[in-house]
Amino acid sequence: MDSAQQQEVMALAHELADAARQETLRYFRNGGLETANKLADGFDPVTVADSAAERIMRDLIEAKRPDDGILGEEFGNKDSASGLTWVLDPIDGTRGYISGTPTWGTLIGLHDGAGVILGVIDQPYIGERFVGGFGAASFKGPHGEGALRTSGTKALAEATIFSTFPEVGTEAEGRAFHGLARQCQLTRYGMDCYAYALLAAGQIDLIVEAQLHPYDIQGPIGVIEAAGGIVTSWQGGAADQGGQIIAAATPELHAAAMNALNSDG
Amino acid sequence: MDSAQQQEVMALAHELADAARQETLRYFRNGGLETANKLADGFDPVTVADSAAERIMRDLIEAKRPDDGILGEEFGNKDSASGLTWVLDPIDGTRGYISGTPTWGTLIGLHDGAGVILGVIDQPYIGERFVGGFGAASFKGPHGEGALRTSGTKALAEATIFSTFPEVGTEAEGRAFHGLARQCQLTRYGMDCYAYALLAAGQIDLIVEAQLHPYDIQGPIGVIEAAGGIVTSWQGGAADQGGQIIAAATPELHAAAMNALNSDG
Repeated sequence: MDSAQQQEVMALAHELADAARQETLRYFRNGGLETANKLADGFDPVTVADSAAERIMRDLIEAKRPDDGILGEEFGNKDSASGLTWVLDPIDGTRGYISGTPTWGTLIGLHDGAGVILGVIDQPYIGERFVGGFGAASFKGPHGEGALRTSGTKALAEATIFSTFPEVGTEAEGRAFHGLARQCQLTRYGMDCYAYALLAAGQIDLIVEAQLHPYDIQGPIGVIEAAGGIVTSWQGGAADQGGQIIAAATPELHAAAMNALNSDG
Repeated sequence: MDSAQQQEVMALAHELADAARQETLRYFRNGGLETANKLADGFDPVTVADSAAERIMRDLIEAKRPDDGILGEEFGNKDSASGLTWVLDPIDGTRGYISGTPTWGTLIGLHDGAGVILGVIDQPYIGERFVGGFGAASFKGPHGEGALRTSGTKALAEATIFSTFPEVGTEAEGRAFHGLARQCQLTRYGMDCYAYALLAAGQIDLIVEAQLHPYDIQGPIGVIEAAGGIVTSWQGGAADQGGQIIAAATPELHAAAMNALNSDG
């Protein structure tokens, strides 16, 4: 991809995030929020805002880059004719969204068939955006802007680890997570996708999750890799299809976390 | 207290929060953050910002209302000659602060010897302030301002419950908390004092914690009570001295939570 193309897709990524922001903020903390259960037997609320934000992003992509593919949480898959696919999660962290916490976000990834080449994590309520791609990662928020760089933490004993909630995945996955977390300095929960932004910003060191979808992780992969971090599966393979995820600030910390997750306890 | 006095203390409360904001933001997400362990055998980081923010608030109170008492997390107790005491936690949620999460806050309470008459929860990074006292509760944030009113949720099965982390208090306290949480619709962690603001704003319904200090809860009591909520101990007594805390949106939900916490399981 040449520099002009890089600028074009980066500009579109910002435009998508701007458009999604308007839709997600329209319904955030609104008493009249309409929700429905997406899964009959689980608690996975999907909001009017979720659909509206994905709709407006898809319309923009269709209008500006009709040959690109789209994979969205709400409206599924559109095949790519260009080799590029936009991977959209309009509201990652819907439980956070309906609880009013400023921890949910809009996730945008751009995949070229081999891997994620651009990622965005946008937190509309705070007004903060984290972007990575083409060798650079940066943020812009209410108190300024700057480059993103993961921390230099190498040892689990010095690491702050995050996961969305303490019940990580299956029982076995949860056991593995807590075995790892006990070796870390500090374990925190509840940040939804905002944790990935904090990892890219060097504020926290490690995130471990399970049962993610491709659209939950491709935006974060783009941001974290461009900030110097590492995102893989628990086995060290590609993370772009979701599932079990390790995101780490350094190769040493990543290796230590992978080792702890795959030990017998 | 007459109306002029109410206005005076309310204006001072805002002035304290403004001054603390400058100090806490100065060090937030700064790589050079100096921290020290306050407790030799625990993990309770205290920052330069924590001391600086309390210092500036104490100086303002000494200058403007020298007869008022002060109880602060960092610099202890100054007896009251006026009957009023300012209760200050410059950075509630120091673990959140050092992790970069926008969930910590400055807590300010004003106690008249009988109870809390004014409370402030301020989140400097988002730029959001929640205030309650003298029969009114309101917020001001990046997307506007308005009145605060707790939700109408009466049943545990419809309630969203928060606590700072899953390991609530002692083993027995943790068992009681999780017995209650299993009866709720949604359980979330990690919001530090921001959870109390969300309760006052009607976004969440219930908070249960243990082992709090007076300065952890007096600011939230002032905001939540003025917004229509209820804050007591697990036994239904006064909450202003900390310890085991229930904060609930409605009397019915409060009674149900208290009942669940005190049942044998």
